[in-house]
Amino acid sequence: MELMVPLNVQGGSPLYEQIYQYIKKEIREGRLAAGSRLPSTRILAQNLKVSRSTTQMAYDQLLAEGYAEASPCRGYFVCKIDELVEVRNKPTAASKPVEQEEESFAVDFSPRGIDLDRFPFNIWRKISRNTLVDDNKAMFGAGDPQGEWELRTAVGDYLHSARGVDCTPEQILVGAGSEYLLLLLSQLLGRDVKIAMENPTYAQAYRVLTSQGHPVVPVEMDRQGMRVSALEESGAGAAYVMPSHQYPTGIVMPVKRRQELLSWAYARPGRYLIEDDYDSEFRYKGRPIPALQGMDRGERVVYLGTFSKSIAPAIRVGFMVLPRHLTELYKERAGFYSCTVSRIDQDILYQFIAQGHYERHLNRMRAVYKAKHDALLAGLKPLETDFSVAGEYAGLHVLLTHRRGIKEAELVKRAADAGVKVYGMSDCFIHPEHNRYPSTVMLGYANLKETEIAEGCLRLKKAWME
Amino acid sequence: MELMVPLNVQGGSPLYEQIYQYIKKEIREGRLAAGSRLPSTRILAQNLKVSRSTTQMAYDQLLAEGYAEASPCRGYFVCKIDELVEVRNKPTAASKPVEQEEESFAVDFSPRGIDLDRFPFNIWRKISRNTLVDDNKAMFGAGDPQGEWELRTAVGDYLHSARGVDCTPEQILVGAGSEYLLLLLSQLLGRDVKIAMENPTYAQAYRVLTSQGHPVVPVEMDRQGMRVSALEESGAGAAYVMPSHQYPTGIVMPVKRRQELLSWAYARPGRYLIEDDYDSEFRYKGRPIPALQGMDRGERVVYLGTFSKSIAPAIRVGFMVLPRHLTELYKERAGFYSCTVSRIDQDILYQFIAQGHYERHLNRMRAVYKAKHDALLAGLKPLETDFSVAGEYAGLHVLLTHRRGIKEAELVKRAADAGVKVYGMSDCFIHPEHNRYPSTVMLGYANLKETEIAEGCLRLKKAWME
Repeated sequence: MELMVPLNVQGGSPLYEQIYQYIKKEIREGRLAAGSRLPSTRILAQNLKVSRSTTQMAYDQLLAEGYAEASPCRGYFVCKIDELVEVRNKPTAASKPVEQEEESFAVDFSPRGIDLDRFPFNIWRKISRNTLVDDNKAMFGAGDPQGEWELRTAVGDYLHSARGVDCTPEQILVGAGSEYLLLLLSQLLGRDVKIAMENPTYAQAYRVLTSQGHPVVPVEMDRQGMRVSALEESGAGAAYVMPSHQYPTGIVMPVKRRQELLSWAYARPGRYLIEDDYDSEFRYKGRPIPALQGMDRGERVVYLGTFSKSIAPAIRVGFMVLPRHLTELYKERAGFYSCTVSRIDQDILYQFIAQGHYERHLNRMRAVYKAKHDALLAGLKPLETDFSVAGEYAGLHVLLTHRRGIKEAELVKRAADAGVKVYGMSDCFIHPEHNRYPSTVMLGYANLKETEIAEGCLRLKKAWME
Repeated sequence: MELMVPLNVQGGSPLYEQIYQYIKKEIREGRLAAGSRLPSTRILAQNLKVSRSTTQMAYDQLLAEGYAEASPCRGYFVCKIDELVEVRNKPTAASKPVEQEEESFAVDFSPRGIDLDRFPFNIWRKISRNTLVDDNKAMFGAGDPQGEWELRTAVGDYLHSARGVDCTPEQILVGAGSEYLLLLLSQLLGRDVKIAMENPTYAQAYRVLTSQGHPVVPVEMDRQGMRVSALEESGAGAAYVMPSHQYPTGIVMPVKRRQELLSWAYARPGRYLIEDDYDSEFRYKGRPIPALQGMDRGERVVYLGTFSKSIAPAIRVGFMVLPRHLTELYKERAGFYSCTVSRIDQDILYQFIAQGHYERHLNRMRAVYKAKHDALLAGLKPLETDFSVAGEYAGLHVLLTHRRGIKEAELVKRAADAGVKVYGMSDCFIHPEHNRYPSTVMLGYANLKETEIAEGCLRLKKAWME
């Protein structure tokens, strides 16, 4: 067989590659039949007037990809390729999908936004810069699966002093957001464990738990939180609760109910309370209310927290405090998972906390949010003849309930017509038909300016009361 | 009831807090009985010579935490607290667990290390600094669950030109490492899907898949990779393969075997190939071998890649390319999960790629690793009378097999006695007793200097051949 490979010596790709590409094409397109013998590298080199090392490199590539095989002392043969492999063109450049045309609102009372204007970018940048220095290359290596010790220590210290959480760094897991940590927890508890959730609840946690295969049972709340008798009846093995500031109701669980929940957990081996310490950082009246975890004397509370709202959603760092005996189970069942947060980010966050910036930032944000909270309550005053306010003095949203029962959908629609976005409670119910707040909407204020809040309240009054 | 609260007006905590703490303690310790009436805020204020707003704040906190309750027109009453809540002290400061005293080795041929000395810290730092500017605050908000569009576009372009992968950004998922992406994939495929793995294989992927509940069946390999007849017999619904450079054997799967695997997948609806494009970036002979994904015309290949080895483990960014029809399923079953990589990190990585630094870094590292690879092969020359070398010319490790059957454990032990760490293959077998490489060890070279490689080879020769 003689191969006439058209070579472009004036440039283009290297000669060996031109030879390799040509022969590969011939094989793929069936012009070089399976089993046929290729010329020796020496002969081909002579024919093409190239060096033998050039033809050898071309053949090596054909061998490596399996288009040809070498038979000792006999030479190179074309392999049998079952199907024609079409060479495809690069897919046409996709363009970024246009975000769904959102209705545009003059004021959006989103209950899950935060105020990013006050984020201390300079400090964060400065810490980042200091972390990324040449002699700090260990930072780029693989880290501790649980999260770096220094960060866990700093988080533990903060949780102890600010939230009354009682733990050692060994009990803390750092992960890329609370959703991921719930996935891990699910592996520890076992996916068949039935989980009770407050109803209404945080829909995202509900989705995560059900996607993991857990049977999830909604448990009604009274004004103190999850009803313990209903929890007992539910047959659940674990209960997911938000004692600090329940989302979305804003209920703060009193100490008695907390103790009743603990008693429920202690009554049977293997029962757990999953405490999502949601929005606990923001409280505008009195002192912060300590976490349920700090009251637990039986290793039954799993504590979940995140920096998504207290620093920024983009940070993607959450943490979970496990009861001691579960840390052993974690090492056994999930200890092989690498930490999902980069060491660099962990180090930046560690320094942000350890240098006191986190506490200062929280204090500043508490004042900022309190001012917005107060502005909202002031703005809502003129509506109080028709609406009652609940869930105030903590968190980043309040509830507004129409006293004479105008339905949620109607309230949302009338507000939208007036350029204001408010949020119904239906989406937070595990079964929307169970919505026990049919005339309630949520108003978040974190990412609005005080002037926008005032403007929004004026528009709502017009939309709803005139 | 009269309450004599000892107040320290000279400092310490605010007066309202002293009052609140004192009453709380009295209740907790049973000296204020459940149901008993507390003095009114006015009376208490008079008695204590403080302002009424001070006593009101103290009572508000007691109410908020549930230690007292207000009865309209009647006053404040002590709540019934079931169990005494002990106030615990901060746990004694834990100290960082001492790393297990590792045997110290003069030379550690770790097969999973990388060379961090060449990491372009300056460029990374510069990009970070530019990302963290005040007017870029959107970067700190919540992002796209699949990963930012710009990064996905850049990854897609890279995968197309460097790996022959055929996809649009819509098919790409960004996540915190390939383990996390496997968790997501597991949710798409369903946890009951039986997964075939090469044997030996990457143990970490095996652990992740089994921890998700998948039945995993090991499939033997021949010199071209996973045996397709054995795969067919296994009854698996998906096969996890590393065609570019199988870990740990270093086998490069020829095109014919790739087609056979694709034919296996096409033969039944719902069959998938999970392509872990492990170590594909590093090839020292000829051109890179395109990914299996690029040959797939039936939407059956899920492609997994990571920047852990090509940039740094600490980066914690992996990506997964789904067949088009699985992207729909993803949106349905797992689209609600937030992206596990921070937007800031995604932006830094995007710029690193888009500005051409990634390609330059890879080219540089290819040269660096090739030099180390060549140094290792040269150092092993004197051992070739007793050992055969395999898996060379690609990846970051080679295999060394004793020609006369000295066992792995003996080789590892003798090397250790000479201060050299080498790695056996047993850990990579799904059932270690199936180890078909009883006399083989792995030698990685990525994080060794060339002088260390030479030194290590000399020591090995002494340890094994003298």
